[in-house]
Amino acid sequence: MFEAKISQGSVLKKLVEALKELVTEGNIDVSPSGMSLQAMDSSHVCLVSLVLRDDGFDHFRCDRNMPMGIHFANFSKILKCAGNDDAITLKAEDNADQLTLMFESSNQDRISDFDLKLMSIESEHLGIPDQDYSAEIKMPASEYQRIVRDLTSIGDTVLISATKEGIKFSTSGDVGTANVTLRHNTTSEKQEEHTIIDLKEPVALTFALRYLKNFSNATALAPQVKLSLTKDLPIVVEYQVGELGNIRFYLAPKIDDEDNMGEDEAQS
Amino acid sequence: MFEAKISQGSVLKKLVEALKELVTEGNIDVSPSGMSLQAMDSSHVCLVSLVLRDDGFDHFRCDRNMPMGIHFANFSKILKCAGNDDAITLKAEDNADQLTLMFESSNQDRISDFDLKLMSIESEHLGIPDQDYSAEIKMPASEYQRIVRDLTSIGDTVLISATKEGIKFSTSGDVGTANVTLRHNTTSEKQEEHTIIDLKEPVALTFALRYLKNFSNATALAPQVKLSLTKDLPIVVEYQVGELGNIRFYLAPKIDDEDNMGEDEAQS
Amino acid sequence: MFEAKISQGSVLKKLVEALKELVTEGNIDVSPSGMSLQAMDSSHVCLVSLVLRDDGFDHFRCDRNMPMGIHFANFSKILKCAGNDDAITLKAEDNADQLTLMFESSNQDRISDFDLKLMSIESEHLGIPDQDYSAEIKMPASEYQRIVRDLTSIGDTVLISATKEGIKFSTSGDVGTANVTLRHNTTSEKQEEHTIIDLKEPVALTFALRYLKNFSNATALAPQVKLSLTKDLPIVVEYQVGELGNIRFYLAPKIDDEDNMGEDEAQS
Repeated sequence: MFEAKISQGSVLKKLVEALKELVTEGNIDVSPSGMSLQAMDSSHVCLVSLVLRDDGFDHFRCDRNMPMGIHFANFSKILKCAGNDDAITLKAEDNADQLTLMFESSNQDRISDFDLKLMSIESEHLGIPDQDYSAEIKMPASEYQRIVRDLTSIGDTVLISATKEGIKFSTSGDVGTANVTLRHNTTSEKQEEHTIIDLKEPVALTFALRYLKNFSNATALAPQVKLSLTKDLPIVVEYQVGELGNIRFYLAPKIDDEDNMGEDEAQS
Repeated sequence: MFEAKISQGSVLKKLVEALKELVTEGNIDVSPSGMSLQAMDSSHVCLVSLVLRDDGFDHFRCDRNMPMGIHFANFSKILKCAGNDDAITLKAEDNADQLTLMFESSNQDRISDFDLKLMSIESEHLGIPDQDYSAEIKMPASEYQRIVRDLTSIGDTVLISATKEGIKFSTSGDVGTANVTLRHNTTSEKQEEHTIIDLKEPVALTFALRYLKNFSNATALAPQVKLSLTKDLPIVVEYQVGELGNIRFYLAPKIDDEDNMGEDEAQS
Repeated sequence: MFEAKISQGSVLKKLVEALKELVTEGNIDVSPSGMSLQAMDSSHVCLVSLVLRDDGFDHFRCDRNMPMGIHFANFSKILKCAGNDDAITLKAEDNADQLTLMFESSNQDRISDFDLKLMSIESEHLGIPDQDYSAEIKMPASEYQRIVRDLTSIGDTVLISATKEGIKFSTSGDVGTANVTLRHNTTSEKQEEHTIIDLKEPVALTFALRYLKNFSNATALAPQVKLSLTKDLPIVVEYQVGELGNIRFYLAPKIDDEDNMGEDEAQS
């Protein structure tokens, strides 16, 4: 059987809110070492990878590995019934066709239990190689969210250029053009407000804005986001999920004629 | 003539907000002892009964009984023009075809008067017998609102079971199943947070969730709600309206084959 | 070239929000003495006049007069990307086909620049004669907003009557009728809460409510609004824009048979 308890249930709520627009359904794999999910978005353009370690839970027991096929919109419907301060327990028998969720309010006078129907989903696990990146940028998650939201109102694609000077997001559309530049900046007393640019070599890549904006649905999970960039490789947008683990979004760069403009800018 | 003044006009605003989705139009009956309304909802499934006593008003005068046929969406439009701190005066001549509403701001520098057209509505008054109920449950109005809202996202009907252990709300739907249980609980210092279960005998009844959810539009009126349950009789959902009176919603239980499940659970 | 900097960028954001529903596109005329706009709304019913003086900016330079043809929805899209505390700099070359906007956050670690495409718009400048008005009413902008919003829910046109007793807004519709009266009132310690009625002679005019409501989109710009009324002339609804200048909306009164009722009331 599988049983996992997390006293801060709001983390689970935020996780599923971060995923549900991108991933319609997918297998959450449970094992003695924790829970994980790897799923393509419904248009098969980007990849989400979620890892939650067993020791991040208040209680975790898993007797044997098994996939739990989740319909994320339904999972979200049930988690919305949990209070933000509720403790949440997940439970499933081996080979179960349902996942039981128990919500306990802090004063324990209200107990809710929900059974979520599980699905049988075929999936193949992709090996994602560990990678050295040309540029790794840590920035406030809210800043990332704002930039991709703002630029989405102007254009469809964004050129992200990382240089010594900073990280620049550029787009253009019917309205005109837009450039937003953040500089390396560790002056704030609050570490979560820092922008840290770790650069091996300058890099400039073009991405579809709608996916980058979608990734920012995870903003509530963490104060900082990390962007990892290498020429011709997918960008990785990563949020730490407290002590539990992390969620990573992968999106391949656009490679087309328009991209030449981007290449030129990166070299300048 | 009829004239009634209430210094805390927000109560009247909340009352009409509580009613307007359920009741399209109905007669507010005025008499020397106060104002009252009895109306079926537009689908003729549930009944609303409102009683406001004359002595709850700052000023109340009614020379002769008369019905005032109100279109509640229009009444609401006008009451939305009253500030929350405005005093509201209602006025009508005998056999008038309009109801005059006067709104006075606390500093009296702003005076608004509105005339609401009255309608001629045929209605028959039902006698609602006083009843001993198998179970009476008082709980925080916000808790009731949350439970019926949550369960509405999962299923269409709810089985409400009152036992010594507590009151349980159960539903099921495409997503899965849900049970929310509240225990008798008077530990809080704040009386409005208590859940009080007054049980003569266990009872379990099934209701259409959309109406129970609709009743919760009255949540702003009172800190507590009272549910009264008896086998084969309508549930009564009652809110006190301050010192003025009360509003009661009646909904008959569903009696069909599915209900057997409910009956079984109640016996367990 | 043209260059203007305003450290309190939120003023520019609010200005464009106030305009963009009313005016689809128009020429902002820049000259050494400042910026100005005169435009009809898209239905050619009302007129907007905006004046921003050069000395109200933190920095202002304009070498030669030129019109900048602005699409206001696009201008708004870009200004929404500015933080409320950002400084905003506007820049254009002579005869440019684009306006550059630079946003600087207070700590200067984030720099955004946007290019807005300019349009070629034919326009003729109307001379608006200075006028003595029969009645000038200053009132809290929020009060004006609330009255026109409330009355819009009841009727389509409003009769505004200014007398010694106060200023009365009246409307009627399917629901019934509504009158809201404000009295001259300077008792509050806060000047922005005063209602000041400066009356040469009583006046009563009827206007289309939807435009008066639209003008109230400027409410965020100023604590007070001034209404100026003269028989048979357009009403002027004016907001001060801090130290920068002002925005004025002009709307001609309705002259039709229904107006007679208005005339009668004004004489009473």
